[in-house]
Parts: sequence; C-alpha cells; structure tokens
Amino acid sequence: MGQDLPSDAPLAVVWRRDLIESVHRGRYAVHSLGGKNLDSLGDPAGYVYLRSTAKPFQALPLVFSGAADTFGITSEELAVACASHNAEPKHLAAVRSILGKAGLSETDLQSGAHPPVHAPAAARLARSGEKPRPIHGNCSGKHAGMLAVCAYAGWDLARYRDPEGPLQKLIRRTVAKLCDLEPNAVRLADDSCGVPVFALPLLNLALGFARLAAGCEDFPEDLSKAVRRIRDAMRAHPYMVAGTGRFATLLMQCTDLVAKSGAEGVFAVGSPEGWGLALKVSDGAGRAVAPTVLAALGRRGVQVPRRMRSFPVADLHGRVVGEVAPLIH
Amino acid sequence: MGQDLPSDAPLAVVWRRDLIESVHRGRYAVHSLGGKNLDSLGDPAGYVYLRSTAKPFQALPLVFSGAADTFGITSEELAVACASHNAEPKHLAAVRSILGKAGLSETDLQSGAHPPVHAPAAARLARSGEKPRPIHGNCSGKHAGMLAVCAYAGWDLARYRDPEGPLQKLIRRTVAKLCDLEPNAVRLADDSCGVPVFALPLLNLALGFARLAAGCEDFPEDLSKAVRRIRDAMRAHPYMVAGTGRFATLLMQCTDLVAKSGAEGVFAVGSPEGWGLALKVSDGAGRAVAPTVLAALGRRGVQVPRRMRSFPVADLHGRVVGEVAPLIH
Repeated sequence: MGQDLPSDAPLAVVWRRDLIESVHRGRYAVHSLGGKNLDSLGDPAGYVYLRSTAKPFQALPLVFSGAADTFGITSEELAVACASHNAEPKHLAAVRSILGKAGLSETDLQSGAHPPVHAPAAARLARSGEKPRPIHGNCSGKHAGMLAVCAYAGWDLARYRDPEGPLQKLIRRTVAKLCDLEPNAVRLADDSCGVPVFALPLLNLALGFARLAAGCEDFPEDLSKAVRRIRDAMRAHPYMVAGTGRFATLLMQCTDLVAKSGAEGVFAVGSPEGWGLALKVSDGAGRAVAPTVLAALGRRGVQVPRRMRSFPVADLHGRVVGEVAPLIH
Repeated sequence: MGQDLPSDAPLAVVWRRDLIESVHRGRYAVHSLGGKNLDSLGDPAGYVYLRSTAKPFQALPLVFSGAADTFGITSEELAVACASHNAEPKHLAAVRSILGKAGLSETDLQSGAHPPVHAPAAARLARSGEKPRPIHGNCSGKHAGMLAVCAYAGWDLARYRDPEGPLQKLIRRTVAKLCDLEPNAVRLADDSCGVPVFALPLLNLALGFARLAAGCEDFPEDLSKAVRRIRDAMRAHPYMVAGTGRFATLLMQCTDLVAKSGAEGVFAVGSPEGWGLALKVSDGAGRAVAPTVLAALGRRGVQVPRRMRSFPVADLHGRVVGEVAPLIH
C-alpha cells in the first residue's frame, strides 16, 4: 500500500435487536476561524476527498466573476448551483432557468446521468419510460453554474470540465483560498460527474466551512461578498441544496448552520459563531453521517428536534428491528 | 455501549486516482471440518448475524421433512429456496412453481416487497407500472420453501414466520446443529423479510459451510442426505442462487465451492476439501466482499479468472477513476 490510512475511531453502530450488527468508523474535525482545533476524533490532518462538500466553493466564481449579476441568477438558483439535489420539480426548474438565462440548454450539460436521488421522483421518471438525463443527476446545478461562468467569460463551453481549462483552474485556486492552502496542496482526482474533485486535510475543510458561514473579511472584497451571497442563498433555500427528507436540508431548516453533504460519507457544517465541522466516515456509509454529525454538534451546544435524532432500522413490513446509534456523546 | 466490538482489521480500500478515499474493515475465519482454524483475520469468535448466508440451512427442513419429495420439488427449485435471487424471470418462475406444487400461491408469501435486485428487472417492473410484490423480494424462494414445509406438515400457514411456531423452532435447531452449537447459543433477531435471523460466532458459520460443502457423515442419515441435496442443488444451479452478474453465482460457476451472500457484508463459502470461510465486513459494505473473499480464497490456493479480480470505480461517463483493492495477500 502506498499510503498510510489516517487514524480513525468508531463513530456509530447499527444495532439489530440486542447485538451490534455493523460499525462505522471515521474522523471529524471542528476548527475555528482563527485556526484553532475545538474538537476532533481521529486524524484531522489526513486528506479527504471533498466530493460534493466542495460545491459551495465551486459556485463562488459564478458570483465573483459577475456572471450571476449579468444573467440575473436568483438566490434560489445560486442555492441549486451548490446542491446535491433530489431532482424534484423545483430543482429541475431552477437548473433549467440558470441554463436559459445563460443562453444555454440541457444539452450543454456534461454531468452524466443517474436516476433522481429522491425515490418518488425516480419512480415517476421510470414509469414515464424516460431514461435519466444529465439534468436529473444531483450535480446538474453545479454544472449549470459552471457553464454559466464559461458563457459569461467567453470560455470554451465544450471544455468546461477540463482540469487544465481556465474555469477548473480558477475553481481549484478558489477552493485552496477558502481552505487556507496553496493551490498545489489541493490534490486532484475525478468526481463521479466528470469534473475535478479536490482532496485536502480534513481540518482545512472545517476551516473552509467556518469561513463560508462566518465570513472571511480579510479576503478581497469581491470574494468575501461572493462567499456571503452563497452562504445566504443556501441559508435562504435549504430545500434547493438537497430536497425532501434530506439531512442537509433538515439541518439548515432547524439551525443557523450552513451544511453540505458529499459522497462517500463526507459532510461539512459551518456556524455563524465562527467554527466549521468536517466529517469523513471511513467506509463511506451515508447512514452514519447524520447520527455522527448531530452527536458532534451536540458537543458544540447545537440542538435539533427529537424526531431528527431517531435512526431506526425497519424491516420490509415497516417494523422497527434495530437502530443506528452514535458512539460520540 | 452494552457490547464490545469484535476486533477487526482493514480488508480493502477504495482508491480514487492516487489517494485512498475509503477503507473497509472486517474479520474472516477459515475453519476445517475437524474444527481447526486454518486462517483468520480479526476475532473469529465474535458473533455475526448470518442474514442470508443462513438460507442453505433454512432450506434443509424442506428436504428432510419429506416435503420436497412429496411435492416433487426440483433441484432448480431447491436452489431458489436457498437464494438471494435477482427476481429475473427464471427465479420468479421457480418460486411460483414451488408455491403451486404445495397448493399455494403468491398471496401466501409474507416476505415483504422490495424492487428486484437486478437493475434491468427492476427497470422493467417500474416501466410496467406494477409495484414490487413479495415475490420480487430476494427472499421469496426461502419463504416459498418455508410455506411448503408448513403445507406438508399441516402447520398454520399464516404463522410460518412466528419465531415460536414449529417451523422456525425447527430451523433454529437445524442451524445450531449444522454450526455445532446448542440451539440457545444461536441468538435471534428479525431479518428484513420478517423471519427470525440468527447470530452465532463467525467461526461456527465457517464450520457450517465446511459441513455443507464436504458433508457431515456423523449426522443422522436424513439430515446428512438433505445437506448433500441442498449442496448439490446450489452447485448445479448457481444462477438460481443469485443471478446475472452476482458474485456468489460467478464464484460457484468457476470453482467447486458452495457460496452464499448475506446482507450487511456477510459471505460464506464451503469447499469440498473440507473447510469453510466466513466473512463479515464490519461496516456492512457489499463492495468489499468480493475483493476480500477472493484474496482470502487465494491464500487457500483457489484461483478465479482475471476478469473476476478487477473492481474498478467508474464515473457516470463510464471512465475508470479508481478501484477497490484488497489489503489481504
């Protein structure tokens, strides 16, 4: 093996009646705006692929380039540009609207196709006999935003995913800036939708979300204004950032946090109080994310309604046969 | 926490380009017919919920009760009674045939509904506008077999799932016998399909599969004959035990092993050479199963074709962007 595994620890277990059936390990870091480690489990310096937790950063050029103002992109549309959305009707309408305002259409999307994340939306599409198209992919808002920047700047639309093209290089510099790193310390690979994905130390993701939520006043004015607008859009439209039943949406609806999910068990949260939390479930399991994040947030004094803190395991008859329970208290 | 976590170790990692994105831990045990530990990783004595790896044991009463002979159940049908099947047409036909021969029908199934495991079968059903029914669930063959035993024995059909009823108590004793335990050492909970699920030490599952594959001549004749018939049915019809593209099917097609998958990252293998292997991926991830099982089998001299040993991670454009790789060699 060419790489050491970052140290981790058990985060949550899956009970089935009175025995533990499965266990999820991972690591998290809570970092302050000032760069102080407020809480952590496992190695906070180990690299993590941000996956979709990078989307709020990836959407910043849409604002600071001037594209959003020129095209009249609304706050709801900015939120869907930061989204891993459910492909519910409102999400699809917002993505189409971004494309239309930039003089583009669905056929410009190169996000790859997968069925809608939201099961009822997926079932509706399947019943209709239509195949999933790129717009149904959870990343289509991000891609629409990327295309809009290219349309505004006069960059080659067909090459908007190119890691060596002007847009993706700008995004990499932006991610690095927000997360307090040199661009070449941000490592690259390929995300599922075909754009570059970024890897950086977990604590830098936490810091990036602290800045997203609480501001970064020492940044150039256009960038710090863009950060505020993205944050405000996500806060104003949590439904657009994910959708019905999704944890990031529910968490933003009942707190003052900014929250974003990523594939492979990554989650990031920013607080207006000036701290950020970043989590990586080592095995990538989504079911460990909400119990762990809520337990770690509880340690910061963040409370959510009781119904959000229940993670039953049900059988096919709807009977509760177990539960997912955090090990952090 | 009311239970210690069994010790485990990293089994496999998920690479994305040149960094490890995720890691799966777990434990496995290889046990001989004579009760000797031939190989293991992590704690072999820790309990594991067998989930669907118990199905070959759960199907034994269908044979040794005399029900299979009386109803004229074929070898293919016995294989589907041991299956976590794909709900492809041949699987559904075999389940219907078992029910029909026992004078029963689909409406007697209490297995709960979920969409077909096989994606094309699920898509066909969705396009047809039909909702998934119990017969489409991967456990419907097991339930049909259970119903057939009750029909033969004159036991209450409506209560075939009852843990305190005669069938489920007989099955628990049978599982215990095969795995060399007292019945009360086999712990119970609820499986997803609503029948009792069994927990026992991992090494006892390995021993049970050694006996399944290599025979248990010191058992009563009717039981040892039933074990051979179940083994022969699975070996003769690997497709019926899972289906297109499924690891258990492919493994049985290219080796002389008996193999069965279970939910939550459980897998069991038996060899006619007189040993069994049982695996539990601690986090329950299915993607770690095949790489780990093949690596552990490699240590026993079992080889499979090269194409079966490749576990690429592809993006939505079909491009390979990473791979799942075992850490065992």
